[in-house]
Amino acid sequence: MLNLTMNISILTVGKIKESFWNEAIDEYIKRISPYAKISFIEIENKAFKDSEQANVIKKQEAELILKKIEATPAIIIALDEHEKEFSSIEFSKFLEQKTAHGDHIIFIVGGPRGLHSSVLEKTHHKISLSQMTFPHNLAKVVLIEQIYRAITIVKEKVYHY
Amino acid sequence: MLNLTMNISILTVGKIKESFWNEAIDEYIKRISPYAKISFIEIENKAFKDSEQANVIKKQEAELILKKIEATPAIIIALDEHEKEFSSIEFSKFLEQKTAHGDHIIFIVGGPRGLHSSVLEKTHHKISLSQMTFPHNLAKVVLIEQIYRAITIVKEKVYHY
Repeated sequence: MLNLTMNISILTVGKIKESFWNEAIDEYIKRISPYAKISFIEIENKAFKDSEQANVIKKQEAELILKKIEATPAIIIALDEHEKEFSSIEFSKFLEQKTAHGDHIIFIVGGPRGLHSSVLEKTHHKISLSQMTFPHNLAKVVLIEQIYRAITIVKEKVYHY
Repeated sequence: MLNLTMNISILTVGKIKESFWNEAIDEYIKRISPYAKISFIEIENKAFKDSEQANVIKKQEAELILKKIEATPAIIIALDEHEKEFSSIEFSKFLEQKTAHGDHIIFIVGGPRGLHSSVLEKTHHKISLSQMTFPHNLAKVVLIEQIYRAITIVKEKVYHY
């Protein structure tokens, strides 16, 4: 069974501005809350003018992310479209396994520039939501929906559409 | 180049009730409109009590879907998580190719019970957005976002996050 004290964080680069994405996320927070502790860590997203500047900023973002994760004993899972994909059932098993001993899990969703290699090196797992590239706001919505779906699968709850 | 008269429809089973999903869809309609004609076909989604009744309704829904697609010369593409996946770049090439001769394209997104085999048999292509199972409202959002992304790739436009 899924650990009752299941503790999941989602680390994102940049605030989501659009209220509709935030409302979608809020809907799933509400659904997940009875079964798991879910929290968010936000790294500031800086604007950039060109690809050279983008690389400098990506490095700076990576340093901020590493500061957040290096001192934690949490299991770090990065989202990367080039990595292993799961079906929803496989993802539920993965999540059940990783939280079975009460470990804190942190998912990292990169910004528009993706994640710097220094962050990817520090993660315990890298998973993909799809072979398609999603904008980071949609990726956050898909991730939280799949966390809720995983809980309904493990707890054998009806998923209300 | 992407055909300027690119004509895409999305057929869905059931209305999306949540305003946040509809606002996300509206955002992408707005972004797509300068480049393509995008329209929606809705099939009524009926409630069901158990799996036996669900199968009867799935069959009835299939008949309604078939009525909408059998008379059209459009290229029919069903979304099914068990089918071939594309990267966003592959999807953009696919869409460019399929619309190159001015053909109308209809994407079909199934309801909570998926699509009946009689519909799947009538489609020209079956594609998957992810190995994960998405609720039909989120699947519609992901599809329209990927259509917009495909257009930005083909037209070499900057995608604004």
